[in-house]
Amino acid sequence: MSTKKNILYAQSGGVTAVINATASGVIQAARANSDKVGKVYASQNGILGTLKEELFDTSLESDEDILALSHTPGGAFGSCRYKLKTPSTNPEQFKRLFEIFEAHNIGYFFYNGGGDSQDTTLKIAEYADEIDYPIQCIGLPKTIDNDLAHTDNCPGFGSVAKYVATSIREAGLDVLSMSATSTQVFILEVMGRHAGWIAAAGGLAADAEGAAPHIILLPEIPFSQQDFLNKVKHHVETHGYCAMVVSEGVKDEHGRFLSDAGYVDAFGHTQLGGVAPVLAHIIKKELGYKYHWAVSDYLQRSARHLAAEVDVAQAEALGKAAINMALEGKHKVMLTIERQNNDGDYGWEIGTAPLTEIANFEKKMPRDYISEDGMGITTKCRDYLIPLIQGEAHPPYRDGLPYYVKLKKVLVKKKCSTTEVV
Amino acid sequence: MSTKKNILYAQSGGVTAVINATASGVIQAARANSDKVGKVYASQNGILGTLKEELFDTSLESDEDILALSHTPGGAFGSCRYKLKTPSTNPEQFKRLFEIFEAHNIGYFFYNGGGDSQDTTLKIAEYADEIDYPIQCIGLPKTIDNDLAHTDNCPGFGSVAKYVATSIREAGLDVLSMSATSTQVFILEVMGRHAGWIAAAGGLAADAEGAAPHIILLPEIPFSQQDFLNKVKHHVETHGYCAMVVSEGVKDEHGRFLSDAGYVDAFGHTQLGGVAPVLAHIIKKELGYKYHWAVSDYLQRSARHLAAEVDVAQAEALGKAAINMALEGKHKVMLTIERQNNDGDYGWEIGTAPLTEIANFEKKMPRDYISEDGMGITTKCRDYLIPLIQGEAHPPYRDGLPYYVKLKKVLVKKKCSTTEVV
Repeated sequence: MSTKKNILYAQSGGVTAVINATASGVIQAARANSDKVGKVYASQNGILGTLKEELFDTSLESDEDILALSHTPGGAFGSCRYKLKTPSTNPEQFKRLFEIFEAHNIGYFFYNGGGDSQDTTLKIAEYADEIDYPIQCIGLPKTIDNDLAHTDNCPGFGSVAKYVATSIREAGLDVLSMSATSTQVFILEVMGRHAGWIAAAGGLAADAEGAAPHIILLPEIPFSQQDFLNKVKHHVETHGYCAMVVSEGVKDEHGRFLSDAGYVDAFGHTQLGGVAPVLAHIIKKELGYKYHWAVSDYLQRSARHLAAEVDVAQAEALGKAAINMALEGKHKVMLTIERQNNDGDYGWEIGTAPLTEIANFEKKMPRDYISEDGMGITTKCRDYLIPLIQGEAHPPYRDGLPYYVKLKKVLVKKKCSTTEVV
Repeated sequence: MSTKKNILYAQSGGVTAVINATASGVIQAARANSDKVGKVYASQNGILGTLKEELFDTSLESDEDILALSHTPGGAFGSCRYKLKTPSTNPEQFKRLFEIFEAHNIGYFFYNGGGDSQDTTLKIAEYADEIDYPIQCIGLPKTIDNDLAHTDNCPGFGSVAKYVATSIREAGLDVLSMSATSTQVFILEVMGRHAGWIAAAGGLAADAEGAAPHIILLPEIPFSQQDFLNKVKHHVETHGYCAMVVSEGVKDEHGRFLSDAGYVDAFGHTQLGGVAPVLAHIIKKELGYKYHWAVSDYLQRSARHLAAEVDVAQAEALGKAAINMALEGKHKVMLTIERQNNDGDYGWEIGTAPLTEIANFEKKMPRDYISEDGMGITTKCRDYLIPLIQGEAHPPYRDGLPYYVKLKKVLVKKKCSTTEVV
């Protein structure tokens, strides 16, 4: 067995437009350091693939395809929503994991995900320490929700921010054109169940008095129907229309999701997933305005065609840094983006934070990022957000559509018993 | 009064990502022919602004802004959903219109819209002929629905087609990543109440076996729940997921919109606008798959950031051609795009068709563009669509977002009595 240790890389949680750029960065840097590290194995569907010994041998992918991976959305190796239990609750699972690490000479474990996923990284790291197993566990941040602690921002967020701000600017111009005789209110529902960063980013589109969005609803601020209706009315009467960006996670004063309230289908079930139609109904009923609504759903987080260049750069740099950090001996940390303020110009570097301070924590919008009435963003918020959407990173186009790579994805021959411990 | 006649240009119906490129084309060509034609007045909110004598003097806009107009979505001068009655039903309205034409020395009327709008152009043209008034009426095509007769395609459609195909390709990669432990079915609802062109365009994304979209639902084909569920199941079992594009106008075997069926809110009202959640519910109930759905709504038709270069070029060329056609004496026609097949290579020219054959007609998808099972597109359809999404026309970006121009929009001094006849 080689003295060089192999790397196990896996993607976890909801994917983003740039998570593959991190994967590409890891593989590129491993290839550049082939004298020091072995192969990069990519686990199929996050940690689940490791438990099943389903590992892709990325050394069989061409350099060209690995570069193309950097501009391909989705999670190329498959992701999962799956949280490891504790070693005391499910010892067999941890034994199985380390049996597989050993069989494939894994010395580095890179888990690419959000807060829940970093809990998995931490559990594996702590178990390794407990049994004194030589593996370095490094978390790589990823989440459109931008809610991880210790990192200035999260890869994936800048691109969804750019998508949402662009979309509401464009749709706002559309609604304005139609408002004399048709639609006066437009509602764009975006992701963010617990933190309002994505909806807040829509506010970047409002570059002039009267420009869309006129209202932003965030999960951090309890919904007040009367204040909301007053503001809608004000904008329709002043500018002829009202365009808004709304977090899916907006709650009423009792902490209930607005999307859960009021709508039942013909079968008597509550209809989930859709705060936009609920708000549209309230507006129609109370103010009588004609409305349209859109729900971006996965479109917003997979829109690689509109990714922010800085987001792609950070995602890829994090992947590359993971190799360097590993070679420096880092363990039980998550890599972070640290904001540098060079005479007012935005800059960034990669740092580290202890996994113990990352796992299972959600960073919400600070109150001073939200306007006094709770339905907009402040200059402080804008100053924070604006560097994160900078630059365009147009993918290559073939025959009129973005070209995204499909990897070969060859599974490594299994070496362990086939007992699954999932 | 000058011997040169002025031009009245107006935008009507739902706007598109490229309707302003047509406006820009008209104004650019009028400026280039200032020895032959007068000013371009742009009516505020379509024909309504003419009835109210609300005309913008476009000569006060800079050349730079008129060029920028070409990459700005929405309808810069405002649009309307308003259909003129007949001269016999509402003679005052027609008298008023021609009073305003005369007061502002209008010799050319360019109406930029879809089938309903061209009905207005035709009525004005016929009334002018009847009273022997010297004005040339030319319809300029515009509709994302791609349903106008006599033109090979409609400006605005190519860009929405590119948006929908790109979006389902991107979201498809996202769903595929998550399908092992989370979402297995994804539904993208797109516009097209009576014709399925937009949903059909989503099919361009499926460039390989198993690639999204796996299903396309069109208004032309009555929905069969069992066939649909069978196909969803097949794709989930074969590829792990099923991603689909669905026209808002899908109907059941009795001709009822699916979006009207089944959903009532807590107040007892039917919830309109959303075939995606209805389908999601059926899938969940019958097959148990976890789903996500998106509704693009106005985002799809205002997404100038993803416009097709050929669409922008055609839209602008139509505006320029209107001036030439007017100078050649054309009247009571709509300009059209004529497809040229040069040894298999796509080419296009601008032609004309009689307005009498355009107004109030909807061109649906031919049956041989739809696959035998009714849930996909044929090679013939693909061959028709693919040239229409070619080329990228990235707008300029400022501070991370597309830069769209805001015109000065100075109203011309009114010359007529203020009696409104709307």
